Amino acid sequence: MRVAVLGVGLIGGSIGLAVRARLEGAVVTGYDPDLELLERAVELGAVDSTAGSVEGAVAEAELVFCAAPVAALPVVAREALEAAGEEAAVTDVGSVKAETVEALGDDPRFIGGHPVAGAETAGVEHARADLFDGARWYLTPTARTGGLLYDRVQRAVSEMGARPQAIDAGDHDQLMALISHLPHVLADLLVAQASQGLGDGERLPEVGPSFRDATRVAGANPAIWADIFAANSEAVADQVEAAAERLGEVAALLRAGDREGIAAWHLRASEQRRALLEADLAGGPLHELRVAVPNRPGIVAEIALELGRAGVNIEDMGLYPAADMRSGAVSLYVAGDEEAERAADLVRKLGHDVTTVER
Amino acid sequence: MRVAVLGVGLIGGSIGLAVRARLEGAVVTGYDPDLELLERAVELGAVDSTAGSVEGAVAEAELVFCAAPVAALPVVAREALEAAGEEAAVTDVGSVKAETVEALGDDPRFIGGHPVAGAETAGVEHARADLFDGARWYLTPTARTGGLLYDRVQRAVSEMGARPQAIDAGDHDQLMALISHLPHVLADLLVAQASQGLGDGERLPEVGPSFRDATRVAGANPAIWADIFAANSEAVADQVEAAAERLGEVAALLRAGDREGIAAWHLRASEQRRALLEADLAGGPLHELRVAVPNRPGIVAEIALELGRAGVNIEDMGLYPAADMRSGAVSLYVAGDEEAERAADLVRKLGHDVTTVER
Repeated sequence: MRVAVLGVGLIGGSIGLAVRARLEGAVVTGYDPDLELLERAVELGAVDSTAGSVEGAVAEAELVFCAAPVAALPVVAREALEAAGEEAAVTDVGSVKAETVEALGDDPRFIGGHPVAGAETAGVEHARADLFDGARWYLTPTARTGGLLYDRVQRAVSEMGARPQAIDAGDHDQLMALISHLPHVLADLLVAQASQGLGDGERLPEVGPSFRDATRVAGANPAIWADIFAANSEAVADQVEAAAERLGEVAALLRAGDREGIAAWHLRASEQRRALLEADLAGGPLHELRVAVPNRPGIVAEIALELGRAGVNIEDMGLYPAADMRSGAVSLYVAGDEEAERAADLVRKLGHDVTTVER
Repeated sequence: MRVAVLGVGLIGGSIGLAVRARLEGAVVTGYDPDLELLERAVELGAVDSTAGSVEGAVAEAELVFCAAPVAALPVVAREALEAAGEEAAVTDVGSVKAETVEALGDDPRFIGGHPVAGAETAGVEHARADLFDGARWYLTPTARTGGLLYDRVQRAVSEMGARPQAIDAGDHDQLMALISHLPHVLADLLVAQASQGLGDGERLPEVGPSFRDATRVAGANPAIWADIFAANSEAVADQVEAAAERLGEVAALLRAGDREGIAAWHLRASEQRRALLEADLAGGPLHELRVAVPNRPGIVAEIALELGRAGVNIEDMGLYPAADMRSGAVSLYVAGDEEAERAADLVRKLGHDVTTVER
């Protein structure tokens, strides 16, 4: 199969590597307006050959991956469709879909795609053949999409290690707005409100890890996120307005002194979070082991090593330095009741104090 | 000095231990309605002796710490003031202050307090003499507070290792509403909205760590948080309504297709967060090192150990298992440009791919 990859950054480069490693007999032609990047892609083995234009890359291709930045995707995909043959399948990798699909959806050869993988900032030097292993790869066919072409994309993605799933482009964007874009907006909001509330340039008083955790993605990758917000503005606005309405309801409960209502709302959140994240927890319910430790190099290693030796898998970890930077806490998240108890015992034997909470 | 501690859980027990270890000549009398707990406190050395009632505990005390749960604090503090001598200072440890201070503020012997330390769920068995080392300890004197008594509390807290800071009770509650209670409300909101949007009982599709990070405290410690929300309901409602208003503004920017406005808002958030959290970053700007790793026991240890050996301090860490649970990513947060570069090199030498992003 002849495959074209338009744009050879992290995602395009990884597509090239995965196709070459896993699709028998596939040959990859790469194109990128950045010639240095293209050269790197050749050196890394991400493409077999290069082309000097979109047309040159897709002329003979049966399968075309458009892997440009979100804002450029509709244009690149349009160019690819114009130059590609009647029997070519053209797909993209944008994390927002409706706009592109609407622009190109009347062409039966276009199938929108979104691999949920990769740190979006990284360059081709981080491309890996196994980047998509086990990753969800959304595909957004329309009523006009050619069945054979869809099957070709779906099969290729699957052979590259990903788990393809068909979804309506609009549904996809609402889903992303809900579970990815809204959390980013709320993180931004929290820092904006805290910054204004405290006075510009003020430092945050020490109040435990909730603020840090909640705002970790605040202002993340500005170039990429401005594009994502812009491309998915209506769906994000829907979710943002729904959130504002919910906040209004919470404020009303608080003003009314409805302690039971607030307590019920808060309690439900812990059950809902558990249900939502269950997929992460193959081993059983998640426990947080909070370990008080001196804040010095090596301490995390000591604990992690001990658990590793005993075969305990740490699902997640957070470090919370105390204000004096000499002491702190390590939170270890371990799945399964027995596993958590065993882990707590091991850490206690190292001489640390451990508090366990079910999450 | 004769000190009384009313309530000997994690905080009360740690106060007893810290007072006995660090206040020369201090003698601690403990009281708790839970006799088993009181006995444990004696065994752990958190108190010198016990009393059978609040009256018995405070009769001779010069300094009284009320360390009951938030909801019970006003009552316990009132009892303590009634039984205590004219020259006794009475303080508490509640994380919400205005209500209690208003109820007791006309008594010059009462000084509200809030040590920012301790996992609130834990029991006396986790009490430690060094729990307050370097921790902020808010004190909320009023115009009626006796100067000598305030000085006594402030000195004791300081000798116990904490960093006392005077603040108006109302300001304190607004501050906590902003930087601690609002993040909890937003975490609850996110899971509620996602849960409803996806359909009850649905699992979250895989979309990277933003949702996990943003909702880590959703539904945290329901019993304690219902009390906190109730005790600080007006201030939290203020912040929640302000957040709703901000969200309305963001939605308007999105609906208007104001890409520049959105981009500027998002970009500002990263600068604001850096300024807010600067105190955490003694070593320079924070870098995230994203490391692609197989998801198996021991891998975190291997990396942490290598960095520990080289004297690199890990400020924070997050583990992000991929959907297949066989691979994943580890995010290491390291302060300082050079330190981050050194850390990245070390991890690369272990054979892992590393992407570095400044946070």
